[in-house]
Amino acid sequence: MTEAKLKDGERVNQLFSTDIKIIQNSEVFSYSVDSVLLSRFPKLPNRGLIVDLCAGNGAVGLFASTRTKAQIIAVEIQERLADMAQRSIELNNLSQQMQVIHDDLKNLGSYITGSLVDIILCNPPYFKVDERSNLNGSEHYLLARHEVATNLEEICAMAQRVLKSNGRLAMVHRPDRFLDILATMTAHNLAPKRIQFVYPKQGREANMLLIEAIKDGSQDGLKVLPPLFIHEQDGSYTPEIHEIYYGK
Amino acid sequence: MTEAKLKDGERVNQLFSTDIKIIQNSEVFSYSVDSVLLSRFPKLPNRGLIVDLCAGNGAVGLFASTRTKAQIIAVEIQERLADMAQRSIELNNLSQQMQVIHDDLKNLGSYITGSLVDIILCNPPYFKVDERSNLNGSEHYLLARHEVATNLEEICAMAQRVLKSNGRLAMVHRPDRFLDILATMTAHNLAPKRIQFVYPKQGREANMLLIEAIKDGSQDGLKVLPPLFIHEQDGSYTPEIHEIYYGK
Repeated sequence: MTEAKLKDGERVNQLFSTDIKIIQNSEVFSYSVDSVLLSRFPKLPNRGLIVDLCAGNGAVGLFASTRTKAQIIAVEIQERLADMAQRSIELNNLSQQMQVIHDDLKNLGSYITGSLVDIILCNPPYFKVDERSNLNGSEHYLLARHEVATNLEEICAMAQRVLKSNGRLAMVHRPDRFLDILATMTAHNLAPKRIQFVYPKQGREANMLLIEAIKDGSQDGLKVLPPLFIHEQDGSYTPEIHEIYYGK
Repeated sequence: MTEAKLKDGERVNQLFSTDIKIIQNSEVFSYSVDSVLLSRFPKLPNRGLIVDLCAGNGAVGLFASTRTKAQIIAVEIQERLADMAQRSIELNNLSQQMQVIHDDLKNLGSYITGSLVDIILCNPPYFKVDERSNLNGSEHYLLARHEVATNLEEICAMAQRVLKSNGRLAMVHRPDRFLDILATMTAHNLAPKRIQFVYPKQGREANMLLIEAIKDGSQDGLKVLPPLFIHEQDGSYTPEIHEIYYGK
């Protein structure tokens, strides 16, 4: 068994349904349910190339690795997070399948020349930068949560550039950015095809959405998948979420 | 009690939760759950002017009349349906509150000059006209279901013209037209603010959506309301729908 190389403040969390172990540091970055749901949302090709943009500590790609034999590249701008992702890859003995690029996603074209990617997974910063952004907080969380280092426009432009024809961009985001997301995808000829809204519990407004778009697809045939509820009224996980975390 | 003036093939249906009686003719047009849901979706002003576009036999406006004292104008292009709506208004003793305009909605500007309308309700034809449209079927259903006599573009243009500033357009439609709806609303400065997806039952894709947009509103702050399920797994109505049809 490979041993975790942990630095100060780090711990190892395990997603029990997959046996994947993830190095976390709550002062810096921890994955949450959005990463887990994103990794399971799109149908993954069994070979080819998957890119995880805004990869953080690599959780999305690590979870996805259990569902495909495709190569996975995780792109993360923050050195500390990219380093955690690299050590989690080693911890899970996934170095043959998965690698980390520590760079700004704007530079992805230097690593991937041409339109080679089957699917891009992306859990991007959710918030626009505005006067309410706490620009004095933790820089790690700031870059992960606010559109400081990248934004929807850059992500969609890069997706259009590196995806194969009919390649797919799958993203998790917030419903209050939904119109922005659709407009930006459409402007880059990424045609939304599948949407799933996620609700904290029954009777509440959606607080998350999963969306998949096809490069150069037609604008027809959007499907709105069954809603996903995270919690029961008593605060426990719904059966769907319990299974995702702990298996059947 | 006012007696229904029925013509051949007509019957009276009652929405028991409201006491409203509707003259129907299944050979021509019958309202269904989409009209009922649309009439309940937006918050209605208690005075002012409500317009029901693509009113059919008037069901949406008739149901809405139980929730507001505002004036209601139902606009319907088909003479036979406009006539059914007029007789239903009389049957429910609503002639003081509600009237029918039998005309193409393109001509609404001749009846309403200026931007006077508080809210537009619209259950429009759902389908694009294409080679699959059965243009040889019942003309009544053809016009009600296919974008032959009007389309999203015309509806949104008219809404922008006759709505007050901050007036609202509330529409029921199908998810596979969702991108069209958003693009057309946005092109006419109608900002989507509330969306609710309707699912036939749990575990199935959405087959209906309700959407409300504000004239000249900002593009921020979209809310995705809790999902609505029509049927239980055994085919009976869910409690929410049972209450809408039959009351508590």
